[in-house]
This record gives sequence, structure tokens and C-alpha cells, in this order.
Amino acid sequence: MRNKVAIVGAGMTPFGEHFDRGLEQLAADAYRTALAGVDKGIDPADIEAGFFANVMGSLGGNEIPSGATLANAIGLPGLPVSRIENGCPSGSDSIRIGAMAVASGVHDVVVVVGAEKLRERPTKESLLESGRMGHPILSYANTAATIFAPQAARHMHEYGTTREQLAMVAVKAWDNAALNPNAQRQQSITVDDVLNSPMVCSPFTVLDSCPQSDGAAAVVLCRADIAHRFTDSPVYIAGVGLATEGLYYHEKTRMTGWDCTRLASARAYEMAGITARDLDAVELHDCFTGTEIMTYEDLGLCAEGAGGKLVESGDTTLHGRIPVNPSGGLLAKGHPVGATGVAQVVELFGQLREQAGARQVSLRHGKALQHNVGGYSVGISVVTVLSRD
Amino acid sequence: MRNKVAIVGAGMTPFGEHFDRGLEQLAADAYRTALAGVDKGIDPADIEAGFFANVMGSLGGNEIPSGATLANAIGLPGLPVSRIENGCPSGSDSIRIGAMAVASGVHDVVVVVGAEKLRERPTKESLLESGRMGHPILSYANTAATIFAPQAARHMHEYGTTREQLAMVAVKAWDNAALNPNAQRQQSITVDDVLNSPMVCSPFTVLDSCPQSDGAAAVVLCRADIAHRFTDSPVYIAGVGLATEGLYYHEKTRMTGWDCTRLASARAYEMAGITARDLDAVELHDCFTGTEIMTYEDLGLCAEGAGGKLVESGDTTLHGRIPVNPSGGLLAKGHPVGATGVAQVVELFGQLREQAGARQVSLRHGKALQHNVGGYSVGISVVTVLSRD
Repeated sequence: MRNKVAIVGAGMTPFGEHFDRGLEQLAADAYRTALAGVDKGIDPADIEAGFFANVMGSLGGNEIPSGATLANAIGLPGLPVSRIENGCPSGSDSIRIGAMAVASGVHDVVVVVGAEKLRERPTKESLLESGRMGHPILSYANTAATIFAPQAARHMHEYGTTREQLAMVAVKAWDNAALNPNAQRQQSITVDDVLNSPMVCSPFTVLDSCPQSDGAAAVVLCRADIAHRFTDSPVYIAGVGLATEGLYYHEKTRMTGWDCTRLASARAYEMAGITARDLDAVELHDCFTGTEIMTYEDLGLCAEGAGGKLVESGDTTLHGRIPVNPSGGLLAKGHPVGATGVAQVVELFGQLREQAGARQVSLRHGKALQHNVGGYSVGISVVTVLSRD
Repeated sequence: MRNKVAIVGAGMTPFGEHFDRGLEQLAADAYRTALAGVDKGIDPADIEAGFFANVMGSLGGNEIPSGATLANAIGLPGLPVSRIENGCPSGSDSIRIGAMAVASGVHDVVVVVGAEKLRERPTKESLLESGRMGHPILSYANTAATIFAPQAARHMHEYGTTREQLAMVAVKAWDNAALNPNAQRQQSITVDDVLNSPMVCSPFTVLDSCPQSDGAAAVVLCRADIAHRFTDSPVYIAGVGLATEGLYYHEKTRMTGWDCTRLASARAYEMAGITARDLDAVELHDCFTGTEIMTYEDLGLCAEGAGGKLVESGDTTLHGRIPVNPSGGLLAKGHPVGATGVAQVVELFGQLREQAGARQVSLRHGKALQHNVGGYSVGISVVTVLSRD
């Protein structure tokens, strides 16, 4: 990027059920938390533009937010705000777009907010309709679990990955979430708890699956050369990568991971000039336990097929070789779609500034990676590399 | 912007009813037309990223496109593509974001595609649901006409604007569209036709209102310093402005126009270093006849309250002082929402290259302006200034 881009503030709401807060209120809560987290303070008048990630506001036709929704919610009714809806990577894509807006020279300081309410639907009709989707392939029995389960099953078949290894991902996530006051889950579970919870879509049980969540997250981005006005310890956006892939199963090149993640991470590593070995922490898209295991491989944290063994080794725990999802991840921190990618960056901002408290990872290289994958039929991925310098 | 950004190709599908083409096919048609319109040719491998505007794909919960939808439709399944959904300005905001991506140095050549299908809905339930919207204020009797009509009525009351003057906007639009083979309307109408067509929401009749449309449009953007590879006559993006305003009537500062348009145009004029006097042509958001009249004023084409007289004077006809909507506008070219802003730029690209055939306007300054306004409760506007040099 032509201008180096810094993150100078980050914040989020607790993830969980917020029946008492609307989408706009959650977005404003996260925004205020992010501004309050700017070390030297920030005047809202310094903010020149916004980028708003929200997905399910429009799904079912209920509430169709635009950029004006966010601008009004945060009390800046003239602010230029774009709304990005790009599947599960909407939040991280909004950070990518916000970073490009700063690097372009058009805006010096921008705010990126992701917000979502999944725990309530306004009408019975919208629920019925959202189950149907109107799509010839996706219309029936289409849930996130049925889209992600076949790959996990194939991974078990090809590489001997076990259901116990899948369950270890959830156990790790809940252990980390128990240290995160913003996480939806606040207790520990065992491998047996996961295996014995109700089956959703083989091999995934309820506890192999992330919850539905309400929540919001926000970050403040600015030109690196003015970051000192706001903080003495900014975190830099060193690399961004977005990639797509074939949308339908017959177009996929393999069934044990996602080409879009491989391509997005290759692009982000290249822009940052690093490899997976340089990472101190990873926040990746563990919508299901199997997704985390396959994403280890797609991101280059281990060899193809070795993901099950990697979680079993303990290397991805909080104090392991490469901690993955110190926040608790989607599985236990929660997954309010538009907010998810932004919240991953909120976590890594804290980790790279050594402000993560009980879940602080050891820093060696000062680099961390954020990852999302999704979209209907799982065809899109975003990867962001963050750096302390 | 740090890098100057050029448009080197532009194309669109005919707007109208396309029951035989899906959203993906329309998007691909427009993309191929834009590439075919690159004077010296372009290799699809040169395209580094895409930006996809689509709004109603998600409204009603049927088909939720992501960037992967466009990447696959155009045969570039790994391409990084963002999806922008920002109300009626989605297409123009996608161009703004695409331009920032180029100016940022992250991508050298990008494609922006807007596409929409409004003329079919997959299920009865989704139609019922989209009428309700689930919103406490917007739930009942909410149509675009009921959102835009009160301002027109107030303008008539305050400034003596007449229903005949409103009708003249539609007559002009249809006259221009009759010269545009891509326009949905292909005949001329009279003031009496407009006045005597069925009332939708006073003061708007059916012919004061834009039609529902299917269609798509695309532009190719690149760094200005490499534009010569693709064409000897690029068009430059000289200024972009996005603005929001208060969402609800009690928050609006006036009832005879939109602050967001004023602010967005002020930002775009400032970035381009021009005023409204420097424009040779304008494509503005005439979703209703009254919207055009008030937008004349918001863009500074005439004084506050003088919009009705401006259209009556003939100054905004094809060969008038400042031609407005030479393409036929939303009223007669059509309004496939996500495609609309992109198609306005397609028109102005042709006008500034003197390739607009029978509807070519006279060029004096080599500058033109594109405008959208919308979003639920009309709180967001985008303005783009294009320049021949």
C-alpha cells in the first residue's frame, strides 16, 4: 500500500444475546469503545469516513441498513459511510477497504464497524423464507453445518483425522473464551461433552458448531505517519488478501480445505513479506471445529493433512508454539457475522500491544494473522496480517 | 487521490425485463461489454480485483451474492471481489471504492460491476415479506414513492413548482431514452400523458416514477499512468463524494431536497477543483420527476426553488445549457438499483469521449457529473466528477 496504515483504537461489545439493544445501538457501543481505547484520545471530528459491515440485516428483508444507518447511530449524520456485505468475511473486507481508503490518500482517519443481530427475527414469514432462500441448490436442508461438514468428513477419511481431534478444537476455544469477558461462552467443556452433544450434521455436533450471536466490533485506522497523535503503540496493517474460488462443489478443486483461504493468505503473506513461521498468534474462522483444522493447513501452519495432529499436540493452545484463537474464536467467543472479522482484529490489536491479560500470548516476531472464510457455498476468504512495526 | 485513476472501458446490458437471464449472466454480459469496449483490448488476466454492487439480491432473502458470485460469473474464480450494498448509490459507491483501491497502490486494474434483477421474485412469501420490512416506521405503505413524494409536494407549496413542470422531466427523459438503444423506454410521451397516468402517491403518477428494471453495467478502472496501454482517450475520476444525513423526517433539516446530495457534491467538486458551471453533462438520480428538480438545486445547477423553472426553460435538454440525463435517466433508461450508478458512468464515459451518437451533448469543459441518492429513508448520496483530462 502506498501509505502505511495503522490501527490506533479497537473495541467491541460482549458477544451473546442482546435483546435489549438494536443493531444501531450495538454498532454505536462498539464505536464508542474503540474511540475510548485510543490512548491519547480522539475527537470524533477527526474521523473522515466509515465502513460498515453487516450481513443479516438484509437477510429476510428486514431492516436494510446503509452507510447512513451507521453514520446516524454514531452521531455523525454527514459522515461518508459505505456498507460492505461480503459473506462471513464482511468485517475483515471492510477493514481491507478502509485500509485502502486511507492508503489512497482520500481519507486520513476512518472507522470500521461490524455489527450483527442474529438472535431475533421480526416475523415468522421471514424465518420461513430465510430457510428457503429461493435457490435451486441451497433451498433445502441448507445450513452452515451442511456446507462445512462434507469437507470435515472427507478430511477424516483421507487423513485419519478423528472426532476427538475435532472436539479438541472446541475444548481449546472454550478454555480461551473463559478468559475473555467479551466471549459468549464462559465455561470449560471436555472432549466427551462435544462428542455427546446432539448431532447437527455428521461429523459436527452442537458443540462442534459456533453459536448464533449478537454483537459489534470497531477499529480506528489512520495513516501511519499521523498515528503518533493517537497512540505510541499502533499496530500496522502489513498485508491484506481477499480471494474467491469456485462456488459449487463440482467446481471445487479439493474437498479438504478451501482454495480461497490458500490464495488469500498467500496474497497477505506476500504483501507483508512474511511466512506463517513469523506469526505469534492467529485468529481464524472456526465456524466449526473441522474448519479450524483444515484452515491450519490452508494457512500453512502445518502440512496438508496434519491439522488434526496439530491441535492434538497442543501447539495451538494459548501457550503453544502458535496460539490459534486466543479470543475463544467463533466457537466460543461467538459469531455475529458482520462483527466477526473486526472482532478478530480487536483481539490481535490487544495481543500485539500485550494488553490481552490472562490470555496474552508470547510475542516473538510481533506479527499476527486474521482469517475469515464463507459466503454462500464458501467461495470467499479474507486474510489480514498485522504487525507491531 | 494519491494515484490518478482512469476509466478505460465501460459497457452495459440493455435495461428492461430479462426473464431469460439470471443475475450472474447479466453481470457477465455487462463485464464482457466493458472489456470489449477497451480500445486497445485488455487481457482478463490484467484485472486484479473486482467490486460488485447488488442490492435486491438479498432483499427478501433470496440469493445472497458475495464477491465470489461475480468472480465466478465472469470466469475469474480466484479474483478478489468485494460486494457493496449501500442503497441506491451502491453502484457509484463501488466505483468510489474501486477508485480508492487503485489509488492506494494495492491494485492497478480493477473492474466494477453493478447488477440487479427486480422484475421477478422467487416466492409469494418473499413478496409479502418485502412489503412489510419488519420496520416500525417503514412497515406499512412504505414504497419509494411515499418516501420521495412529500418533498416534491413541499417544493410545490414553497416555490410554486407545478405538476406540469414535474411532467416535463419525464418528457425529457423519455425523449432522450428514445435515442438510447439500452433504455427500457423507447418512445416519446407528453405532459398530458404524465398528468393523466394513474396516481401513485401525490404528486407522482406512474409516469412520474421510474420503472422496475433488470440490468447490469460495468467499468474498468486503472492507474492513470498505465491507461495508455488500454486506450488513447481515457476518462479520469476527478472527484468522489459520499455523504449521509439524518435518516428520519424529524431529523431532516429541510423538506425540499437532500443535505446528503449537497454535501456529497460539495466534496466531489472540491476534490475535482471545479464548480457546477464547469459541467458539460449530468446524470442524476431521477427516481421520480420531483427528485430531479430538487437535485438540480442540491447540485448547484440552479438556485434553491428554481428547479421547476430550470426544466421548463429547456436548459436541461440534450442541447440545452446543461444537459441532464442524456441517457434517459432512471425514469426512462431504467433503474436496476445496483447497476444504476455504474450505468450513469457508462453514459458519461461515452459522452466525454464523444461516442454518444444521436444523444451526444456539446463538450466545452470536458467535465461531467454522476449522482445517486437513496437508502431507506433517503439518507445517503454519492457524487462522482469525471473529466476528459
